Amino acid sequence: MRDFSHDISALALNTATLGHNVEGAGAGWSPERIIDACAERGYGGIVFWRREIGTNAARIAAHARAAGLTVAGLCRTPFLVGPLAPQSRQAVMDDFHASIDMAAELGAPVLTIVTGGVEPGTRGVVESLRLVTDRVAGAAPYAAARGVKLALEPLNPVYGGNRSCLTTLRDALDICDTIGAPNLGVAVDVYHVWWDTDLPRQLARAGERILGYHLCDWLAETTDVLLDRGMMGDGVADLKTIRSAVEAAGYNGFCEVEIFSAGNWWKRDPAEVLDTIVTRFRSVC
Amino acid sequence: MRDFSHDISALALNTATLGHNVEGAGAGWSPERIIDACAERGYGGIVFWRREIGTNAARIAAHARAAGLTVAGLCRTPFLVGPLAPQSRQAVMDDFHASIDMAAELGAPVLTIVTGGVEPGTRGVVESLRLVTDRVAGAAPYAAARGVKLALEPLNPVYGGNRSCLTTLRDALDICDTIGAPNLGVAVDVYHVWWDTDLPRQLARAGERILGYHLCDWLAETTDVLLDRGMMGDGVADLKTIRSAVEAAGYNGFCEVEIFSAGNWWKRDPAEVLDTIVTRFRSVC
Repeated sequence: MRDFSHDISALALNTATLGHNVEGAGAGWSPERIIDACAERGYGGIVFWRREIGTNAARIAAHARAAGLTVAGLCRTPFLVGPLAPQSRQAVMDDFHASIDMAAELGAPVLTIVTGGVEPGTRGVVESLRLVTDRVAGAAPYAAARGVKLALEPLNPVYGGNRSCLTTLRDALDICDTIGAPNLGVAVDVYHVWWDTDLPRQLARAGERILGYHLCDWLAETTDVLLDRGMMGDGVADLKTIRSAVEAAGYNGFCEVEIFSAGNWWKRDPAEVLDTIVTRFRSVC
Repeated sequence: MRDFSHDISALALNTATLGHNVEGAGAGWSPERIIDACAERGYGGIVFWRREIGTNAARIAAHARAAGLTVAGLCRTPFLVGPLAPQSRQAVMDDFHASIDMAAELGAPVLTIVTGGVEPGTRGVVESLRLVTDRVAGAAPYAAARGVKLALEPLNPVYGGNRSCLTTLRDALDICDTIGAPNLGVAVDVYHVWWDTDLPRQLARAGERILGYHLCDWLAETTDVLLDRGMMGDGVADLKTIRSAVEAAGYNGFCEVEIFSAGNWWKRDPAEVLDTIVTRFRSVC
């Protein structure tokens, strides 16, 4: 298991942590300013969201490279199914391809897939997972041709209805097995999987298909399932045990901190947030 | 699979559905009035919460019997672990025993166990599940001596931190296997397990250990994970498929409707709620 007490080059910031999607949060820092602040503190990587990139992918990528920071990934594909997805398969695939294009332009090696929830007109998750499989299989070659890996991210089952019919690492790996594309794998986020006693077995099964590892914490008294994630060490997820299993499976990539926290961390000075992450990363992750 | 389109004698009301725990909800109906209203409509069973029974178990049980209604179960044990549990093992066991005594006095054949969340001072769910196993094993003989079965109810993983370290039917059955008590089984609530693709396999494994089957629905856009459950047919759970698997496993007991809904059903006339349940039970469950 890697020791982060001195070397934090495996630490990556997911920009959601600075409140990218709330008016006024994160003090309105630009991608370039966030890159510089991360680089100054020794972060090794950064992960952006599409809304922050717009048409500036080449410029932002160049800024990150110049600062010595790796663009580790891009969030995310459109929802592929469910009530929040684009209305037609063609619209889904067009935006799926656009997200792949942006990842390629950024030089981001991994694009995260959030599947979307239960497809309208159906019940349960089985039919929706079948549609997800179809759409991911359709996009995987397009991504491969552009050097982009796709990471299926299972979300906490609380999102099963609207945001992710994919709720377990087991199901994600089943889809990987079905599709069999060499550039398809999974993203493991402790917020979504911390409760799952089947996790050690599924991580071992995943092996080199683990394309991302996301850090935050699950607060025992979570007040908002979307926007009340905890800073590492403030919750009940067994972070070191999970990372140990992730690394035993063969993963040695970035640990990406992704904390949606409208009531707490998004209200703070981004510099304080970035400093706190470093402290916690060295000690409790 | 049973046909409920005419015979609704398998329908049971969990009194939480009428808002027992919110001031003013349910129009303040007494247990006796709820019993009568259920019996008039052809419900076969009723499940109470301890707070509604107080010292009136014998009187309420007699009223149910006279009305031709079966008291199908009692909710519930104290939290056995976690931040909301009594502070000592002894205090947990004392209240656990008191809940068993009440079930016996009511003539309720099944007492539901909600485990509680992650034990303070620990991380992840493994140690908490070990403590749950210890405490359930300690109480099972006491319950057996009083003719009470204990039903471990896994809750949706969103409750993992504070209310239930037990989040899957798989884990519940693992605890049953470990303890091996003949009066220990599981309760299956669609709200908590609807998302789980492993459910069919675990239900088959459960077999006759299924001691309760709880109905409601998962709303795609759930606004409050505690108090925004849906009426059957209004959500995305695949109710008929789940019940089919539950019955294929050997269960032919009550289907217990348990809908916590502060913003919708608890605000309505209880008579309307009871009528709607009957209509939905005949058609979509």
